[in-house]
Amino acid sequence: MSYSILHELKPLFYPRSIAVVGVSAKDEKPGNRFIKVLRAFGYKGKIFVVHPTASEIDGITAYPSLKAIPEKVDLVNINTPAQHVPQIIVDCVDKGIHAAEIFTSGFREVGEEGKNLEQAVRKAAQEKIRIVGPNCFGVYCPAGGLTLLPGPNYPRESGNVGVISQSGGWVTDFIWGADAYHVKFSKVISYGNGIDLNEVSLLEYLAQDPETKIISAYLEGINDGKRFLEIARSLQGKKPLIIWKGGLSTTGKRAVNSHTGSIAGEQSTWNAFFKQTGAVQVNSFEELLDTTAIFTYLQPGSYRNLALIGGGGGVGVAAGDICEKFNLNIPASTTDILRKIRTLLPPQGTSIRNPFDMGSPHLPAAILKQVIEILLEWEKIDLIVVNRLFFYGNEQLMGEKIVEEDKRAAAVIQMKRIASKPLVAVLEELASGPDMIGLEIDRRKVRTMFLNEGIFTTASLFRLVRALSNFSNYWEKATRQRSR
Amino acid sequence: MSYSILHELKPLFYPRSIAVVGVSAKDEKPGNRFIKVLRAFGYKGKIFVVHPTASEIDGITAYPSLKAIPEKVDLVNINTPAQHVPQIIVDCVDKGIHAAEIFTSGFREVGEEGKNLEQAVRKAAQEKIRIVGPNCFGVYCPAGGLTLLPGPNYPRESGNVGVISQSGGWVTDFIWGADAYHVKFSKVISYGNGIDLNEVSLLEYLAQDPETKIISAYLEGINDGKRFLEIARSLQGKKPLIIWKGGLSTTGKRAVNSHTGSIAGEQSTWNAFFKQTGAVQVNSFEELLDTTAIFTYLQPGSYRNLALIGGGGGVGVAAGDICEKFNLNIPASTTDILRKIRTLLPPQGTSIRNPFDMGSPHLPAAILKQVIEILLEWEKIDLIVVNRLFFYGNEQLMGEKIVEEDKRAAAVIQMKRIASKPLVAVLEELASGPDMIGLEIDRRKVRTMFLNEGIFTTASLFRLVRALSNFSNYWEKATRQRSR
Repeated sequence: MSYSILHELKPLFYPRSIAVVGVSAKDEKPGNRFIKVLRAFGYKGKIFVVHPTASEIDGITAYPSLKAIPEKVDLVNINTPAQHVPQIIVDCVDKGIHAAEIFTSGFREVGEEGKNLEQAVRKAAQEKIRIVGPNCFGVYCPAGGLTLLPGPNYPRESGNVGVISQSGGWVTDFIWGADAYHVKFSKVISYGNGIDLNEVSLLEYLAQDPETKIISAYLEGINDGKRFLEIARSLQGKKPLIIWKGGLSTTGKRAVNSHTGSIAGEQSTWNAFFKQTGAVQVNSFEELLDTTAIFTYLQPGSYRNLALIGGGGGVGVAAGDICEKFNLNIPASTTDILRKIRTLLPPQGTSIRNPFDMGSPHLPAAILKQVIEILLEWEKIDLIVVNRLFFYGNEQLMGEKIVEEDKRAAAVIQMKRIASKPLVAVLEELASGPDMIGLEIDRRKVRTMFLNEGIFTTASLFRLVRALSNFSNYWEKATRQRSR
Repeated sequence: MSYSILHELKPLFYPRSIAVVGVSAKDEKPGNRFIKVLRAFGYKGKIFVVHPTASEIDGITAYPSLKAIPEKVDLVNINTPAQHVPQIIVDCVDKGIHAAEIFTSGFREVGEEGKNLEQAVRKAAQEKIRIVGPNCFGVYCPAGGLTLLPGPNYPRESGNVGVISQSGGWVTDFIWGADAYHVKFSKVISYGNGIDLNEVSLLEYLAQDPETKIISAYLEGINDGKRFLEIARSLQGKKPLIIWKGGLSTTGKRAVNSHTGSIAGEQSTWNAFFKQTGAVQVNSFEELLDTTAIFTYLQPGSYRNLALIGGGGGVGVAAGDICEKFNLNIPASTTDILRKIRTLLPPQGTSIRNPFDMGSPHLPAAILKQVIEILLEWEKIDLIVVNRLFFYGNEQLMGEKIVEEDKRAAAVIQMKRIASKPLVAVLEELASGPDMIGLEIDRRKVRTMFLNEGIFTTASLFRLVRALSNFSNYWEKATRQRSR
């Protein structure tokens, strides 16, 4: 089994040749657009085009049928109107092609006729060809040189995150959102209606795929709940599985049906699923993104006891409220910590009871470094958060140049390199008025420096704490499971 | 009463002259910084400086004491070390000065000694001078030419939002965050420890202030719960009151104490407060910002039934889940709506059951306009959301130029001008990688166009729906209250 699905789906993820069907000799149709995208992305294999009359389209030799292509075809990409798809699949099987992605929509999500078309496609496939789609954006696999529909500029580098998604839209957002965390992917599959390959078979693939270490999923319906649960359970403690299940509300269920024609399932079933598998449940796109990203940064473990450096008094109050909501702690400073840190900071306008309010944006880098040093030795603390300590670009807002910003950033990086526990950062977007773009540019620069050093950096403490809580929950459950 | 507090606090908000105490002749101390900030902001009144020996500081004549100033002083700004503050207040009273803001920290938030100092300040005041602070950033009142500590570049225009905040940090964030919504302020007061003017007296002021139509508050503790409740109740249905109460958790309570030395209060007390007053409870900075902003855009009323245009299938599913969570509805299209809209859109790749998935980023502007027109006539719908319909800058992501973007934005604006119900927009930050700043610049441009036309625009559907739900709850309660 292990061998078979990895081997079976090789033409889908690492195709040496792709034939595109549904290309126009005149217009810019989705097929033409896909060819452009594929070339822009830098696909290195051969591309063929199928067209009834043209001899060449966009500089590529066209053939009247798949059968007429004189070479082996690994993957067929289909963009024709829905009613032609069954015959194309028949042709694929005849030519011995083992993988297809059907971008075309207009199947079961539009009603009875579409349902019948799906049946016809399934019948045509005779289980001799594996299909992604229809009603999808296809496969992004940078190692295979393959990208999905609107992805000409996706990162070319591979990573260890695998994604399966019933929605093409969320997938495109996800890849770009992840880019802001420097997260890279092994395989991303938008599988739409999933008439053949679906959340079950694709999860099975990613479970076995050695390139994939973390699995993220956006799901609407599940075809084979029992098998899905089985695979998910086998992953526990091995490959983190993070799932955003869309359409758990009544309104959401209706939308699921008109989107991919799936049955959304009940909240109670899903609660049981998450309990039994230890998979991480998230409830929004943003949470899926942040949680996936944190799994690529932190070593497995539970990080519930935080020390927070930076932020004013009000920020500290909010931090307390947020952490408690997510079951994380901000332990009060011990007398030893109080004594050590009091020698570094004036008593007025600061607070050193944790959170550590440094009192001024003008904090010298050397002091920050010493504070981090002291906190690194505080045994109870699992993780240190540098929270809103940077004010790059803020001359525009505060009318004064905040000195030592670069030195402070360097101090954080320096401490991270020798730190025995994780050091993470929060860099908020402080002002987003139309004239304030300079702040955002500066913020992204600092974030890039931090991320390059492996310092996980989010745009808000809330997003950090929510992700960290998901992460800690996951590894605590995995540990309990193992010790049983 | 109504006359007295407005009159009494006039020197605080509209000072014709300000004396700054705690200014250095050599260094850049907070007092020097405040003078710079005040001048940069364009304060038009007279500024005096008090210094024991200098005759002039930063081009301003210095006097050895307040008493020595030969003219009337409306407001004193104090930045000296804490132990000098009681004597300065004695001097204020002697000179007949009626308002002071004390920026200095190091009072009750640092312990017993600080508590005693506060007592001494109160005693010195003899109820003859009104005080903001200590441990605060002071007052921002653009109509009075007055700005608070780090606010040299705050908007000069006045607006109708009044803010009281125990935290100076949140206030500065709030003013800049509000700028991104084009929200302007009547008065913003960071009152810190609030030894004289506090949440009670300041709420009373804003309640009576004719310039203030909406009141936002960040609170840690309450001094006189009964009076605060009384005033809040009197505002119901007249001036919306939106409160973020920080420190309701155990950890948050500890932080409150070390921040402003307040007693945070219990969740149950606050629940009762919100129930009795109809004030809007929010739970984060972001929610305070979004909710305040929506009150400046929409006409009073309840907007629970939404039509959503734009976004893909997955976006529609998430929209359903989010709306249901916040008790808003996305009513299913009637057969009449289905019939009318089906003539405009192809059946494949679209969904017209509400949300309306337009299927393609290449939607022609004329079609969008017609869809909005049809939805404006759908009686059941209270509000139309244009959700993720713009892809400015996306050539970078999708490798293709999305045509008609400008025309589509123009169509939305055109329809807004004649719309009989509110039209709002969601413009997401689609990619925030370091190289993607062009998208953010474009996004802000479109947002500015929309906001200028009164189209409320948020960065996510979640934020819109949460604010809209708060807004609708408020006006529904106010209406029920009135009809009793």
